[in-house]
Amino acid sequence: MIKVAQLGAGRMGAIHARNAAAHPRLGLVGLVDPRPDVAGPLATELGATPMTFEAVLADPDIRGVIVASSTDAHLDNALSALRAGKIVFCEKPLDLDLARLLAASGELEQAEGKLFVAFNRRFDPHYRALKARIESGEIGALESLHIINHDPATPPPAFIPTSGGLFKDFTIHDFDLAPWLMGEKPVQVFAWASCLIDPEIGRLGDVDTAKVVLTTASGRLCMISNSRRSGYGYDQRIEAFGSKGAVRVDNLTNTAVSVWGETGAQADRFPYAFIDRYAGAYAAEMDHFADVLAGKTAPEAGFAASVASLELAEAAARSAATGAPVRL
Amino acid sequence: MIKVAQLGAGRMGAIHARNAAAHPRLGLVGLVDPRPDVAGPLATELGATPMTFEAVLADPDIRGVIVASSTDAHLDNALSALRAGKIVFCEKPLDLDLARLLAASGELEQAEGKLFVAFNRRFDPHYRALKARIESGEIGALESLHIINHDPATPPPAFIPTSGGLFKDFTIHDFDLAPWLMGEKPVQVFAWASCLIDPEIGRLGDVDTAKVVLTTASGRLCMISNSRRSGYGYDQRIEAFGSKGAVRVDNLTNTAVSVWGETGAQADRFPYAFIDRYAGAYAAEMDHFADVLAGKTAPEAGFAASVASLELAEAAARSAATGAPVRL
Amino acid sequence: MIKVAQLGAGRMGAIHARNAAAHPRLGLVGLVDPRPDVAGPLATELGATPMTFEAVLADPDIRGVIVASSTDAHLDNALSALRAGKIVFCEKPLDLDLARLLAASGELEQAEGKLFVAFNRRFDPHYRALKARIESGEIGALESLHIINHDPATPPPAFIPTSGGLFKDFTIHDFDLAPWLMGEKPVQVFAWASCLIDPEIGRLGDVDTAKVVLTTASGRLCMISNSRRSGYGYDQRIEAFGSKGAVRVDNLTNTAVSVWGETGAQADRFPYAFIDRYAGAYAAEMDHFADVLAGKTAPEAGFAASVASLELAEAAARSAATGAPVRL
Amino acid sequence: MIKVAQLGAGRMGAIHARNAAAHPRLGLVGLVDPRPDVAGPLATELGATPMTFEAVLADPDIRGVIVASSTDAHLDNALSALRAGKIVFCEKPLDLDLARLLAASGELEQAEGKLFVAFNRRFDPHYRALKARIESGEIGALESLHIINHDPATPPPAFIPTSGGLFKDFTIHDFDLAPWLMGEKPVQVFAWASCLIDPEIGRLGDVDTAKVVLTTASGRLCMISNSRRSGYGYDQRIEAFGSKGAVRVDNLTNTAVSVWGETGAQADRFPYAFIDRYAGAYAAEMDHFADVLAGKTAPEAGFAASVASLELAEAAARSAATGAPVRL
Repeated sequence: MIKVAQLGAGRMGAIHARNAAAHPRLGLVGLVDPRPDVAGPLATELGATPMTFEAVLADPDIRGVIVASSTDAHLDNALSALRAGKIVFCEKPLDLDLARLLAASGELEQAEGKLFVAFNRRFDPHYRALKARIESGEIGALESLHIINHDPATPPPAFIPTSGGLFKDFTIHDFDLAPWLMGEKPVQVFAWASCLIDPEIGRLGDVDTAKVVLTTASGRLCMISNSRRSGYGYDQRIEAFGSKGAVRVDNLTNTAVSVWGETGAQADRFPYAFIDRYAGAYAAEMDHFADVLAGKTAPEAGFAASVASLELAEAAARSAATGAPVRL
Repeated sequence: MIKVAQLGAGRMGAIHARNAAAHPRLGLVGLVDPRPDVAGPLATELGATPMTFEAVLADPDIRGVIVASSTDAHLDNALSALRAGKIVFCEKPLDLDLARLLAASGELEQAEGKLFVAFNRRFDPHYRALKARIESGEIGALESLHIINHDPATPPPAFIPTSGGLFKDFTIHDFDLAPWLMGEKPVQVFAWASCLIDPEIGRLGDVDTAKVVLTTASGRLCMISNSRRSGYGYDQRIEAFGSKGAVRVDNLTNTAVSVWGETGAQADRFPYAFIDRYAGAYAAEMDHFADVLAGKTAPEAGFAASVASLELAEAAARSAATGAPVRL
Repeated sequence: MIKVAQLGAGRMGAIHARNAAAHPRLGLVGLVDPRPDVAGPLATELGATPMTFEAVLADPDIRGVIVASSTDAHLDNALSALRAGKIVFCEKPLDLDLARLLAASGELEQAEGKLFVAFNRRFDPHYRALKARIESGEIGALESLHIINHDPATPPPAFIPTSGGLFKDFTIHDFDLAPWLMGEKPVQVFAWASCLIDPEIGRLGDVDTAKVVLTTASGRLCMISNSRRSGYGYDQRIEAFGSKGAVRVDNLTNTAVSVWGETGAQADRFPYAFIDRYAGAYAAEMDHFADVLAGKTAPEAGFAASVASLELAEAAARSAATGAPVRL
Repeated sequence: MIKVAQLGAGRMGAIHARNAAAHPRLGLVGLVDPRPDVAGPLATELGATPMTFEAVLADPDIRGVIVASSTDAHLDNALSALRAGKIVFCEKPLDLDLARLLAASGELEQAEGKLFVAFNRRFDPHYRALKARIESGEIGALESLHIINHDPATPPPAFIPTSGGLFKDFTIHDFDLAPWLMGEKPVQVFAWASCLIDPEIGRLGDVDTAKVVLTTASGRLCMISNSRRSGYGYDQRIEAFGSKGAVRVDNLTNTAVSVWGETGAQADRFPYAFIDRYAGAYAAEMDHFADVLAGKTAPEAGFAASVASLELAEAAARSAATGAPVRL
């Protein structure tokens, strides 16, 4: 058992802590959260000890640290843990501010093999199968990628000001997936965004609906569709078009049950939100962290992936603001 | 243009008459129906002349006769037309009474190449594709066949006494399809039937729900499910299981439109009834009749198929009545 | 029977001529084509008479003229027929040159009720059902539209120079559908296009792959994906996203047959090309022409729709050439 | 943590032991298996101690015993554990011999609240949702049930003599599900079985293909289709037909990935076998056992369900042997 501790016991924290506790090769020994009423029950449930971050850093038996604190603390927490010689699992994003991230580049590049930034969608078994089939060549040379990423319902307005905006908070997943699946970095971004859903989001300076076109040096094209509210659940689809055919990931349904009635055949609902849809991905990324801790593999994503996706997000925001494509 | 005339301008008659009139190689010249208010408008619509049956039989230019009169007149009408040297398209069934049919066997066997009994489902493009794929060997040796044949809504009670009962009126389609698809005649029938839907049907001595198992000499098994009322439209599915896999025909939908909403993904309705579901089959059987008239092919089904399916229907009725399998 | 004549007996001409001949309320009396070996057999098949265009124009009994001549003759032929008092069915496009079209605007606006330009996709029963369901309000207010329009295989290079280019030849369908479905005209076009498939197309100055984003005054967004070669057949899908849900048209399959084998469940192929996929739409547009001829309805599309879609196509071409969005 | 021990570390044993070890409320402390090379590695993996059955029975801290020994030892093991005051999870079947089972009825009826016989399919989330929707009344009164239960590949011939035969070994699942879903016990069984797949199975006196029709007192009908080899994976489907519509569970696929190529649209494979298809059900039944141990619920199935399904299996075997329906 490799001992790990975790910072943060909020919504994402609870997911990661439970996955760490249930993992056969990991032992979750410490849980750090400034809110004792939040940390306590989760620690009890999982047989972990509430600790201070300092105690975690000072304990040489704790080899891994899972950073699931508030977004604005991710980078500092991760750096502290790295400096203490820990291997770090950091919930995405590493930081929302590209300049701040680049300012730490020296230290973070050094730590590249020790820092895993958890872009969960890369671990979804459906997307992994998609990537494998693209790479198998069965659709020939890849030409286009279409990503549909629609949330079921708008976030509470209070979340908007600290979110980084639609592109950094939400499209960031697509900006990470697109080069990962295309095998090539985008060189141009065109984004068109509107506030069509919740005027309060617009008043706070953000958008809720966007269409993005990425292009790569070799001419590949990626279309991304984002919406903060679908009305029918979490819409998570990807289609890859190649010279010989297409391969796609469709939406899942909660069960394989359907009903045939007077109004037609009705399938079960799509998983409502990311917690349901990506439960397998969260478990798989913890398994990946166990492999990183065991020295079996390098982190799937770290500083470089954080910078790359953030650059695309900032370029998209500039494109949406100016109405013109942005070259990278 | 090959000249044809038709007997009967009712619901099925209108389908066949319109298909004959629209066929590029057929000319529908005469329409026979004792009800002038029924025959007249259809004749006008299609540019045909209302005629007596005698006049049709006497006209040497009329080479084909389509029999779409009332069921109890089918056999007499077909025989009259055959005696007059016509090529005959007879709406199924040729007759509901096996003994009467066998009594005419001498004359009907003689006419085998001139009598087409229109078992419409053999002409459905989906079932034809199914048969071709079974025969292609891609699922290996055929072992089992499952037929779902559920009507959307019960017929009016007045229809029941003249219908011949569920097995002769409705399952007859499955009794024709099963040997056609399996390439082998059944040697045993077990049928279990209930009156679960409309007690009036039970009072009239009929059933509305049945499950039938057919077995062939080589051990192949066919399961048939019948219901007079589905609640969701016309359910018309067939699955064939072989040593290497399965091939199946699923239900069609009215359009390729679906809606994603709060309660899940909803496909469009299934075609509501046979007129919609088998429109293509009705057109294809008229095209087949044109080929028979042109001497290009022998009739797909005639006296022998009529007898074979009726024998299965009568055996099923005996099995359901006695609760025991019936060997043929 | 309303008498009509047709110009052009090529591939599209044969489709329209057969639909006109089969229509219960139309009589195809004349067929005009300078190539006697092309016009003759089709005229014989359909019982029509080969005629000159002059004879058609001079015959007062011929009330409708179907223009299915070569694209560059469409406008002249349509104008001649209109001047002779005919009602005109013109295969799209009315013309590929926006300036030429606008030069005839005086005459064409006068004729608006007498000129039907056959944008076939508006007559597809699936798209009509889609439009009806958008308008029914069941998905709430429409926000986004996604159109996938991929051809199965590249056209012969010889076709490219006269085609008008991808946007005028192929995307034109989407430029017509988008405002029709959104109920609002686009005010901006961004198009990114590449030559990814056939370098010969690039050498001829055209592109074969494009992604287009249209935006309307109210902020609605439409994404279009075009490809000249899919590798899997004709990909014709539309998705409409609204405030309460989504409604979509999926691809059709040739039959409802699927095969389950060692490698998974395989559905039947998509219809290979437009002739198969839109057979119902071609028949429906001829039925619409019969209604126009009978004075029952105004033409679904004419000069205004031709101009509107061509303006979008030209704007898209400019956007793709400059890399910047074009405002209309 | 409630302490449990397990007998048997074979294929099914490993599944149950891993689920017990991973369960947050259960502690797997002991593992009993006469084969040290089998028990040892699994015990090490799960942090359990290899023990003798006697030591398990003697340890008052061990409250629950999971019986996953060889089938012929299930009944004796379960009885021993019950006598020692344990709560028992017994892998199905409790026994293959109805007479033996009934001989122990006094003791087993006493233990009904303490004995859970793990009919896994009742815990499948898809089937549970199916049952809930049948019971919700949305399809009206239930009339028919169709169960497709096809194994991907025949078992090794050596398994056949100890398997109990197709009906007791395989159809037993359907005999348990049918009354559970219909809410009513069958009163008649008709079974037709063949050896179509592997002649070696026939030489050993067993069959590999069967169709079964069950009928209930109220007239409900259930059709079951069994095959020892599908050629395309594990086929596990159920359809329930009611007075207002139908509700069904379709096959799952390994991922939501599909490929569109020249030969059509191909979905991913079905889960190959029970270990994959019912992984969720196995976890859910261990969770149910935790609830039984905690006194929160009575066992979902025990002695009575074991007898009921075995009676149906024996009746089906008699029906298949005699060719006549068997009344219960």
